[in-house]
Amino acid sequence: MSESQGNRFPFYGPQGRLVLVDSALEAVNRGSTTIGIKTPDFAVIASQIKPTHPLMEPSEKIFPVDFHIGATGAGYIGDILQLIDTLRLESQKHRLTYETPIDVDSLAKHLSSFLHNYTTYAVRPQAASIIISGDDQTGIQLYQVDPSGTFFRGSGFAIGQSSDTALDVITKGYNKNMNLEQAIELGRAAIEKALGEKPIVETGIIEPGKAFRKIRTDNS
Amino acid sequence: MSESQGNRFPFYGPQGRLVLVDSALEAVNRGSTTIGIKTPDFAVIASQIKPTHPLMEPSEKIFPVDFHIGATGAGYIGDILQLIDTLRLESQKHRLTYETPIDVDSLAKHLSSFLHNYTTYAVRPQAASIIISGDDQTGIQLYQVDPSGTFFRGSGFAIGQSSDTALDVITKGYNKNMNLEQAIELGRAAIEKALGEKPIVETGIIEPGKAFRKIRTDNS
Amino acid sequence: MSESQGNRFPFYGPQGRLVLVDSALEAVNRGSTTIGIKTPDFAVIASQIKPTHPLMEPSEKIFPVDFHIGATGAGYIGDILQLIDTLRLESQKHRLTYETPIDVDSLAKHLSSFLHNYTTYAVRPQAASIIISGDDQTGIQLYQVDPSGTFFRGSGFAIGQSSDTALDVITKGYNKNMNLEQAIELGRAAIEKALGEKPIVETGIIEPGKAFRKIRTDNS
Amino acid sequence: MSESQGNRFPFYGPQGRLVLVDSALEAVNRGSTTIGIKTPDFAVIASQIKPTHPLMEPSEKIFPVDFHIGATGAGYIGDILQLIDTLRLESQKHRLTYETPIDVDSLAKHLSSFLHNYTTYAVRPQAASIIISGDDQTGIQLYQVDPSGTFFRGSGFAIGQSSDTALDVITKGYNKNMNLEQAIELGRAAIEKALGEKPIVETGIIEPGKAFRKIRTDNS
Amino acid sequence: MSESQGNRFPFYGPQGRLVLVDSALEAVNRGSTTIGIKTPDFAVIASQIKPTHPLMEPSEKIFPVDFHIGATGAGYIGDILQLIDTLRLESQKHRLTYETPIDVDSLAKHLSSFLHNYTTYAVRPQAASIIISGDDQTGIQLYQVDPSGTFFRGSGFAIGQSSDTALDVITKGYNKNMNLEQAIELGRAAIEKALGEKPIVETGIIEPGKAFRKIRTDNS
Amino acid sequence: MSESQGNRFPFYGPQGRLVLVDSALEAVNRGSTTIGIKTPDFAVIASQIKPTHPLMEPSEKIFPVDFHIGATGAGYIGDILQLIDTLRLESQKHRLTYETPIDVDSLAKHLSSFLHNYTTYAVRPQAASIIISGDDQTGIQLYQVDPSGTFFRGSGFAIGQSSDTALDVITKGYNKNMNLEQAIELGRAAIEKALGEKPIVETGIIEPGKAFRKIRTDNS
Amino acid sequence: MSESQGNRFPFYGPQGRLVLVDSALEAVNRGSTTIGIKTPDFAVIASQIKPTHPLMEPSEKIFPVDFHIGATGAGYIGDILQLIDTLRLESQKHRLTYETPIDVDSLAKHLSSFLHNYTTYAVRPQAASIIISGDDQTGIQLYQVDPSGTFFRGSGFAIGQSSDTALDVITKGYNKNMNLEQAIELGRAAIEKALGEKPIVETGIIEPGKAFRKIRTDNS
Repeated sequence: MSESQGNRFPFYGPQGRLVLVDSALEAVNRGSTTIGIKTPDFAVIASQIKPTHPLMEPSEKIFPVDFHIGATGAGYIGDILQLIDTLRLESQKHRLTYETPIDVDSLAKHLSSFLHNYTTYAVRPQAASIIISGDDQTGIQLYQVDPSGTFFRGSGFAIGQSSDTALDVITKGYNKNMNLEQAIELGRAAIEKALGEKPIVETGIIEPGKAFRKIRTDNS
Repeated sequence: MSESQGNRFPFYGPQGRLVLVDSALEAVNRGSTTIGIKTPDFAVIASQIKPTHPLMEPSEKIFPVDFHIGATGAGYIGDILQLIDTLRLESQKHRLTYETPIDVDSLAKHLSSFLHNYTTYAVRPQAASIIISGDDQTGIQLYQVDPSGTFFRGSGFAIGQSSDTALDVITKGYNKNMNLEQAIELGRAAIEKALGEKPIVETGIIEPGKAFRKIRTDNS
Repeated sequence: MSESQGNRFPFYGPQGRLVLVDSALEAVNRGSTTIGIKTPDFAVIASQIKPTHPLMEPSEKIFPVDFHIGATGAGYIGDILQLIDTLRLESQKHRLTYETPIDVDSLAKHLSSFLHNYTTYAVRPQAASIIISGDDQTGIQLYQVDPSGTFFRGSGFAIGQSSDTALDVITKGYNKNMNLEQAIELGRAAIEKALGEKPIVETGIIEPGKAFRKIRTDNS
Repeated sequence: MSESQGNRFPFYGPQGRLVLVDSALEAVNRGSTTIGIKTPDFAVIASQIKPTHPLMEPSEKIFPVDFHIGATGAGYIGDILQLIDTLRLESQKHRLTYETPIDVDSLAKHLSSFLHNYTTYAVRPQAASIIISGDDQTGIQLYQVDPSGTFFRGSGFAIGQSSDTALDVITKGYNKNMNLEQAIELGRAAIEKALGEKPIVETGIIEPGKAFRKIRTDNS
Repeated sequence: MSESQGNRFPFYGPQGRLVLVDSALEAVNRGSTTIGIKTPDFAVIASQIKPTHPLMEPSEKIFPVDFHIGATGAGYIGDILQLIDTLRLESQKHRLTYETPIDVDSLAKHLSSFLHNYTTYAVRPQAASIIISGDDQTGIQLYQVDPSGTFFRGSGFAIGQSSDTALDVITKGYNKNMNLEQAIELGRAAIEKALGEKPIVETGIIEPGKAFRKIRTDNS
Repeated sequence: MSESQGNRFPFYGPQGRLVLVDSALEAVNRGSTTIGIKTPDFAVIASQIKPTHPLMEPSEKIFPVDFHIGATGAGYIGDILQLIDTLRLESQKHRLTYETPIDVDSLAKHLSSFLHNYTTYAVRPQAASIIISGDDQTGIQLYQVDPSGTFFRGSGFAIGQSSDTALDVITKGYNKNMNLEQAIELGRAAIEKALGEKPIVETGIIEPGKAFRKIRTDNS
Repeated sequence: MSESQGNRFPFYGPQGRLVLVDSALEAVNRGSTTIGIKTPDFAVIASQIKPTHPLMEPSEKIFPVDFHIGATGAGYIGDILQLIDTLRLESQKHRLTYETPIDVDSLAKHLSSFLHNYTTYAVRPQAASIIISGDDQTGIQLYQVDPSGTFFRGSGFAIGQSSDTALDVITKGYNKNMNLEQAIELGRAAIEKALGEKPIVETGIIEPGKAFRKIRTDNS
């Protein structure tokens, strides 16, 4: 009964699964391989830049959100862009209201709540997972937020195509005492192992007291 | 006739069952094993923390709601987070309006009403059961609220995966004169028996006049 | 033709039946056995308290609505709770507006109209029948209101599981000169006969000029 | 083509029939047998009171609407009650606005328009036919209004179960010079013939300059 | 492709037909035979009054709209009544706004626009064709407006059951120099020929400078 | 996949076609043959007037929109009338706002945008193509606007039944130096060739500095 | 399961694909071949003008948006026109608000967000890809925005029919030092190769400090 009912008004499928959210996750799992790595001293977020034809600039995948915060994502580009805008707007609203920079935890929870709304009403749950990183009073922070509104905090994440492989590389190579160059290299290695090739990778860097910055590295 | 009609506009299925709520409960029953234990002197709420990879912090499952109240839940994390926010907001509104802390019964009934609304309109009933505990003028309180808006008051609850087994352990081991350490141990034992393994467990503690606090214990 | 059309937009089924309301009534008929008995001198409302595990307090089934009015119900607990809130709110609005206690007839008609609305629009008709009793200027009053918005006035009602059997016991044992203890016993006997066992029964008592009060009796 | 299309968005069925209104009429035709009789000097409206168990008061079927107007109906009780409320409200609004009693024709047309709205939008057409009678500046008036919003004026009506038989009895026995007692008896005879038994009948009486009043007669 | 798509969201059927409007027209074609005849000196509108039982007044089919305008219709009575109300309201609004009587052309176009709206949104196109006649500064006017919002101006119209036959009679018998009595007789003859029997006919008469008036003629 | 999905929520069919708009165009293609011809010195718009019975005035097909602008259309009359009203309203709003006559290009784009809206939401795309012609500061203008909101500017258009044939006649006979009588004759010839008969044709004429005027010519 | 669920509420199809957006892209791929080429010194946008009959002006495909910005598109003309209007409006709003010309990046992101909204709610995603080019403080800019809201920045783009072939021609012939005439010729060659014929091509030219201008070249 659940099955046929799930077909009609597709909030729930068999075993109470959220079928539209599962579809959104399928799209995320086809997206660019994207990772985040955090140590006590800095954080790195990076994403595969899918190859385009020579005259097209690859899409931006690492997005500054505020002075101290950056984000990246995997899934439909249109959905990612919409969610990044949401983060930027919330961040600016916080500055205007409280005259202080927003903390990363508040920003991740705001995105979680924003995404959750799309799972409850008769609209399309957004097909993007987002990795947010920033530096606030509690130190360097790294979060992952999924289409269902679930969020995670941690020192290493991977989303998108073959993310299991990428996460395995990060987990094995992680050392909280590593330096920034080692972390950037670890992120790149994780993405390359997942894809079995050397893609262009865009990388964002968070360091205490410094503005969020990004670098792009060719596969040359 | 009921059956075919239930397939189309799925408020009701055969025998007048609420089919979307039943789907939500299926999701709850696949969630983390989660318990609550109350004696006249204190209450303990605890939830299995599902194992994650080493670099990801396990999700928070025990949530402070107010100085004197905490909550936990089983089901979709995104739905649980949304309901915890609802509890926190209601609690703060009460403080602002009446300048007194909210009583646990009012908070549980507010959540009941909030969840019931999602069962009546063409939206998604939330897939989460919540256990709320707190200390108010009537003493230590423990409630369970389900996706249909039904709530229960008691001294021992278990929700989520294999909750029948967990509840059986609690019922057999319950003694209203036990001390806090014994109750924490009973909660952990109930979750371990349900899962057949030693998971990480996050535990929240309510004691009269003290702030709600939480502890996490490894399965080491 | 009616049949196939009823399957699509399920307001009406064959013979003009209200199919969603019929589903709601099926749910009511699976609910706790619940009765009401009225004599010129008092009224008694009582409901089976479904057995729970030892550490869970049985759900409240007898609800004070105002100083002079109480109610009970059968069906989905979440729906019953929502309707009781509606009764309490209407009662308080009457006190604030007219500075007099509401009469029971007005309260029953308000609930009737409230429930009827859910049968006309594309929402879920509520799955609960409610028995209301109170003492007003016209004496002791007893009403039953069903999911379709139909209401009845009388001296004896039974709703929920095996309510036919319960009503038969009340009808045979009813005597308008019986005393309160006899009426309480008659209600309990009706519920026990319907269920074929001795359940916990919660009972509410209305007497002229006295506050509505309730008692709970074990099946010991 | 009309047929299949009618199945999907069921405003129209084959031959342009209003399928939901037809379903509502099926429900009316299963309702209590209900009649109205008018002479130049008075009017009588009457309805079968369906037998209930001994402790339940039969539902009211004859409703005072204003000092000079009464109404009755056949169909779902919840729908009838809602429509009677609509008539009472319109009647009071007229008194407040114009400081005169409403005329019966205006009231019937208001109900007609109210019912018609439910046939045009994606809601449930109400399953009740209403007979309205009253005394105004144009004399004694008698109207029937159906779920489609169609209304009729006349000296004799019958709606509900076996209404054809009841109307046949009234037509044959009608004499515009009969007195009130003869008319009441004719109404009762019509209902009894239709049902093939002696039911309880509730009767409402309209006489010029007098308040609408009602009587109930047992089948003894 | 058009065909299956038309079944689901039934605005359009094969060949771009408006399927709900076609259903509405089927209902119009089952309605009372209704005609309009105009000469330079007067206009006559007439409609079959469907036989009812002896105690029921036949429904009014000829409706005064304003001092100088009358209308009639074929289709569902409830829909006709709603449209007549719309005409009366528009007519009164014109008097209040401009302090002059509305011209018949404006009134017909208002009805056309009103009906057209029901063909564009997900509601029920009204199942009635309306014939409007009146006397204004441009002389005697006669219009027919259909459920699609299409309107026609002319000297002779017939709608409802067997309207082709009725229109044929009018066309053959029409003479712009005929007098009022001849026109009334021609209308009656058209309706009788269409129905193959002598029905009651209600007739409305428009003459320059005179109030719209109506007469009813038995088939005796 | 596209095909079955197109059946359910019929915005898109196979190959990304707009299925409801295609249905609307099918209706346009069954409409009256309608043409427009423009030279530097004047424009002519003309439409077949479908034969009616002798007492019914043929529907107006050539519509004055403003002093300097006229329009015609093919498709459902009700839809054409609605669109003409839209043009007239926009034209008057422009005069009130800017105190200058609207230019034809603005008017065509307004209609384009108005029609486009109906293709994007769950309502019915309007089944009419419109030809607009007028004289403004840029000279004589001639536009065609289709149900999808697409518009064209040109010197010769044909829409409705067998419009390909009509357009072929116009293209072959067109000469930008022809005089008004020749253009009127060319339009008539195009319509006659398309229909294979001599219909009544209504013609509208735009000349610089003169009011839009129309003529009707019989097929005698 | 995804497949059948995708059929009912078609946000997502198998593998999490956005099925309505895929349909919209199918329509884009049937549209006019359209290209954009940018060098540091200028940009060129060009689009095939589909042949029409001799008396119809080909549709405009190159649209001035602001003094310094132009745009073109492929897909449904009605949708393209709507999106161009959106660009013009946003551009004017920027001038009024900030008293400076809008930068091209802001304009592309506004269109991206506008298009994304149509993919999330139960409306029709717009069937058009847009190429925007302009000159702002950061130099000459060229963007492509797709129905999903995805946007790209680059030096060469092709959309519409056989765009792969067109893009291949541009990529091979691109030289950032080429002059304007060479770029126009390259664009024309790309379109001709894609279509296998010499179509009319409309071309827009962006040069620093100059107003956006366009030229049309015949295939002679």
